[in-house]
Amino acid sequence: MSPELAESARANLKRLFAPASVAVVGASASPEKAGYQALLALEGFSGEVLAINPKADEILGRKAFPSLSAVGRPVDLVVFAVPAAACVAAVREASASACGGGLIVSGGFAEAGALGKSLQAELAALSAGSAFRILGPNTAGFVNKQLSLTASFVAGADRIPQGSVAVVAQSAGVNLTVSFLLAGIGHGVSLAVGLGNSVDIDAAEVLEFLVDQPGTKAIALHLEGVAHGRRLYETLRRVTAVKPVVALTVGRENVEEFAQSHTGNLIGSYALRRSALRQAGAVVVESTQELADTAAALSLTRLPAKKNPGIAIVTAQAGPGLLMLDALKSERVSVPTLATSTQARIAELLPPMTHQKNPVDTGRPSPAFGEVLAAVVVDEQVDAVIVYALHEPAALRPEDVLPRAAARSSKPILFGTTGLSEEIESSVAALRKHGIHVASSPEQLARAAVALVRDAELRSRRELPVLASVPSSATVAAPYDESMAKELLRTLGVRTPRGIACDSHAAARAALQQLTKPVVAKILSAEIAHKTEVGGVHPSIDDEAALEQALAKLDAIPLEGERRYLIEEMATAGLDVIVGAVRDPSFGPTVTVGLGGTLAEVLEDSATRLAPIGLAEAEEMLAELRAARLFDGYRGSPRLDRQAVAETIVRLGDFLCQHPEIVALEVNPLRVYPRGALALDALLIREAGTI
Amino acid sequence: MSPELAESARANLKRLFAPASVAVVGASASPEKAGYQALLALEGFSGEVLAINPKADEILGRKAFPSLSAVGRPVDLVVFAVPAAACVAAVREASASACGGGLIVSGGFAEAGALGKSLQAELAALSAGSAFRILGPNTAGFVNKQLSLTASFVAGADRIPQGSVAVVAQSAGVNLTVSFLLAGIGHGVSLAVGLGNSVDIDAAEVLEFLVDQPGTKAIALHLEGVAHGRRLYETLRRVTAVKPVVALTVGRENVEEFAQSHTGNLIGSYALRRSALRQAGAVVVESTQELADTAAALSLTRLPAKKNPGIAIVTAQAGPGLLMLDALKSERVSVPTLATSTQARIAELLPPMTHQKNPVDTGRPSPAFGEVLAAVVVDEQVDAVIVYALHEPAALRPEDVLPRAAARSSKPILFGTTGLSEEIESSVAALRKHGIHVASSPEQLARAAVALVRDAELRSRRELPVLASVPSSATVAAPYDESMAKELLRTLGVRTPRGIACDSHAAARAALQQLTKPVVAKILSAEIAHKTEVGGVHPSIDDEAALEQALAKLDAIPLEGERRYLIEEMATAGLDVIVGAVRDPSFGPTVTVGLGGTLAEVLEDSATRLAPIGLAEAEEMLAELRAARLFDGYRGSPRLDRQAVAETIVRLGDFLCQHPEIVALEVNPLRVYPRGALALDALLIREAGTI
Repeated sequence: MSPELAESARANLKRLFAPASVAVVGASASPEKAGYQALLALEGFSGEVLAINPKADEILGRKAFPSLSAVGRPVDLVVFAVPAAACVAAVREASASACGGGLIVSGGFAEAGALGKSLQAELAALSAGSAFRILGPNTAGFVNKQLSLTASFVAGADRIPQGSVAVVAQSAGVNLTVSFLLAGIGHGVSLAVGLGNSVDIDAAEVLEFLVDQPGTKAIALHLEGVAHGRRLYETLRRVTAVKPVVALTVGRENVEEFAQSHTGNLIGSYALRRSALRQAGAVVVESTQELADTAAALSLTRLPAKKNPGIAIVTAQAGPGLLMLDALKSERVSVPTLATSTQARIAELLPPMTHQKNPVDTGRPSPAFGEVLAAVVVDEQVDAVIVYALHEPAALRPEDVLPRAAARSSKPILFGTTGLSEEIESSVAALRKHGIHVASSPEQLARAAVALVRDAELRSRRELPVLASVPSSATVAAPYDESMAKELLRTLGVRTPRGIACDSHAAARAALQQLTKPVVAKILSAEIAHKTEVGGVHPSIDDEAALEQALAKLDAIPLEGERRYLIEEMATAGLDVIVGAVRDPSFGPTVTVGLGGTLAEVLEDSATRLAPIGLAEAEEMLAELRAARLFDGYRGSPRLDRQAVAETIVRLGDFLCQHPEIVALEVNPLRVYPRGALALDALLIREAGTI
Repeated sequence: MSPELAESARANLKRLFAPASVAVVGASASPEKAGYQALLALEGFSGEVLAINPKADEILGRKAFPSLSAVGRPVDLVVFAVPAAACVAAVREASASACGGGLIVSGGFAEAGALGKSLQAELAALSAGSAFRILGPNTAGFVNKQLSLTASFVAGADRIPQGSVAVVAQSAGVNLTVSFLLAGIGHGVSLAVGLGNSVDIDAAEVLEFLVDQPGTKAIALHLEGVAHGRRLYETLRRVTAVKPVVALTVGRENVEEFAQSHTGNLIGSYALRRSALRQAGAVVVESTQELADTAAALSLTRLPAKKNPGIAIVTAQAGPGLLMLDALKSERVSVPTLATSTQARIAELLPPMTHQKNPVDTGRPSPAFGEVLAAVVVDEQVDAVIVYALHEPAALRPEDVLPRAAARSSKPILFGTTGLSEEIESSVAALRKHGIHVASSPEQLARAAVALVRDAELRSRRELPVLASVPSSATVAAPYDESMAKELLRTLGVRTPRGIACDSHAAARAALQQLTKPVVAKILSAEIAHKTEVGGVHPSIDDEAALEQALAKLDAIPLEGERRYLIEEMATAGLDVIVGAVRDPSFGPTVTVGLGGTLAEVLEDSATRLAPIGLAEAEEMLAELRAARLFDGYRGSPRLDRQAVAETIVRLGDFLCQHPEIVALEVNPLRVYPRGALALDALLIREAGTI
């Protein structure tokens, strides 16, 4: 796509989501038709609405035109209320008429067999060759509350209240579910979009649009499969620097078959998608309710970027306080002991006997409650305060007390309360007007605090790592065997055992003389990916007799091409990890680290990031492992060199970024010592399975 | 306590929770006093209310008496609205007046330092020596909605609606939070109790009361520490056979300090408490909202006891359907493919292109929706159906369609919907009247289904295991060393390697001759618990020279008492597990199984049950391990003998049950083979740390 075309495609995206004029192709006066529903839904829209129908002059009070070209001027947004088979021609006409973009509600595309797939391919080709933008197909559309625009067929979509959260969902059903859940907690939406099959506009592009949209304070994102993961990742990094993004994704278990029947997209790796979202700065959640709650909280309040912010808990009831403390600690959120001076001030305000260090248990709220809160919020260790109290207006009027305490500092105070909904309603509404988030259970309140902390932490390490670790000499040349892969690793600065590649028994015997014994003898061939499985590794060789025995066994392995041997010094004992750099079809270069061995594999204890990866982030990957304690001198074993592993992660990632012809470079195992680490085996995979 | 006293204590528990008469000790006409609040809260109570105050004739329109004894007849429930220091005398008087029981709201007991602890000890002694029952101290009390009785000081407690869920919470704050959350989802409570410090009445006793209470259909239980775990476990087993119990417990992380300041109780092991609750048949949840949601669902519907019941998903929107499928699969809930005949029927009713095997994606609901549902619910594989649809009354009126479909079978249908609350309200209320549970998000609906499944599964293995595996010859005699522990294991039917205990080098040499080589030589002494750490284990001994070397090293270990050697045949390679039977101070005999080695320990992959344990349950423990796949022939290694491990679990548990003098019997490792397993090392611990 030429730069000019790309530029007008970007402009057309804005015309689509914020149009001045909307046309309905297939507009109809029959209430059971989609073209009727679409027109009806546009009733509240303040811009121009045009009905397109070759057989009518007027529909639902709107002037009707026989075709888009008959309108005589370009329309910003076209709603296609026609069956799948008629869509291609209709899109072609809209594009030719210089319309901005269109919304295709109809199903029957990639999610529906071969015929649908070919229709979708035609749409894709049309959209790729022009600046005309397509939302869908197979989506219920979107609402733009700032324009009172309901470009959607679903009943009730027009009644979602306006607010400051944008919802971007792969599924139209999830889009509406989350929008209504936001309404249920007293919030609303700015824009709510269902992406459907995403033949053209995908989540990344909507995010791009939202970053400048003034009415959107936070974004709730729902994803199934992601076709262009790398682009989403890069867009998200830019967006989360400006606005908080909360993400929900599906596919923890195998739901591929159902997912494909839904949008025709592949689901891909759930773990990778979650890692990428988090790495890009999104707060990842587990349910639609949590998506709504968290986006709502972040739309009101965002902490400054910070590592490990401190949360204070002030609670009028100890039991709920205990649940919140447990929830925060489970998420490794810091609940710091309050400063001595803060504790002294609280001791003046509260009766003794309750816990006052953090959590602060106030007991039944007294008139001093606000003062306690004010003392806590200014504590230097504290970055945000969560306050829980059962609704008990005789003892505490939170709508009076909390805003006053909040005014003492710029730090956010979040509130949680439970009571009969009709009794708490007005108090909750007043607090929200003051910009104070209100949760309806202790754990929901704790989760909001966790989200604030995550969002602040993710931004605290935003600097994009630079590709600095890979020397230009790191080239890749045949034969693609272990010896070559290890030479490459050494160029990258990753240490390997001392070893010699030998093409004869005589050379192997000479190597035995040169190296420190014991040595290991391995088969060296680009044909063999897994040496151990074919008997290609013989350890603990001390003398020539043992060497000859080993070589004889290596000679028995059937090979088509050249047969060589790698004679290497045996490494001493240490902790084995696996570092694997792999190019994902959607997300591009990634690096995964995990412990070596069957048990670690079965327990799925690994961490993944998209490359390039900074050193601090690589160290975080190690900290993320459930087995991280093994690096820290567990049970009397020595403390191990985490940095050596982290550097290996960084370098493998950088290498993959710079070498698009490489699919994977895996070190398995990387043996870690108190000082340094050694790559004991390495595997390089070029495109299309070439070893 | 004599049987007669115990019997009247039980009767008094019923008098306390379902009284005909209530007296307030410390009744007051001053609105700021607890004694005023308590009397005021009793306004709606239909039984007799008496004010006790030495200085008044009448308070708040109730006749006042100078003392309980002055009333002249026993009162069922006494509310003590007096400070901690005055409580002991007041309780003594109430007990002497043959009152049923009392509620102590005041704090200042075990949660509040030495003086409070001694006051609580006095209360404990009083209660242990009489039939008078005490709820609290340090609790906000309880409500019995069936009697319109509010024995609580918290504002709003009287306005919790009546319903069929009983709430039993350690914390008064959690009690009210959960009660209000129930109200928020259109449910209510029968009885709601805060236990506080539990000097007398604990959760087990309230459960005992509730099992016969006709108005209670489900129980929501909240626990912090549990002082008498074994009794709770046994009570829960009986209760869950009759009524569903949902449990929330705290203490995943270390919250001990705050918890003690709350109720004065120790928290104990979170993992053990959760295991015990589940083993007793309770559905364990993660938050107060989930506690309310799940208890509400189970109060309407309970599946028959069954292993692995099948859930069908019917959804009008694919995206939410995908979220539900993912949630069910994550919890290992079966979502079976529908029968061919069911699929054929659905194909007649729905347009093609949507997923119809289960989940059934109906697309926008058509008039056939009810027929689709009816076809799904009668499918033989299906035990319950969850239905999700956005609120779209023009397309679907769930209050008409669902009850009709539900009437076709005895299987439950659960519904989930999202929409503007004022619009969905009447439909939701109508469905609840039909006994259909309604959730407000896809994941909440899925969680309700998971709860139904768990409850059914837990009851499907109710038979209490019998202590049949331990022969009466399994006695324990000094010296308590490895040889003796292994002899004991053999008596229990657990195999060990062939070995000989030797008290001299000569005996060791003779043993070497008798055994199959290689052998291992170990130090044998009751003084040493961890042999490896002192160099007490020497493997791979093939000849006398190696044996003498090993013995010399064993002789260098400093010992106070007798020095012996264990010469044993070396075991071949296999998978090492740890089976540890340990007596918990609260829950009694338990058995834990996990994989051997540092990594498994760090990753905390283990399963625990209270003994005695049936064989099926022991096998479930293995299935519960995240590393369970390693038993199944992982990556070409052979399939291992799960049953041999399960039998070891059963036998160790039975042994601990029959030998109260034993604190622990641990087999570490138990080496597992394709046929059988061998205990390679064993440790027996008698009371108070004696080895």
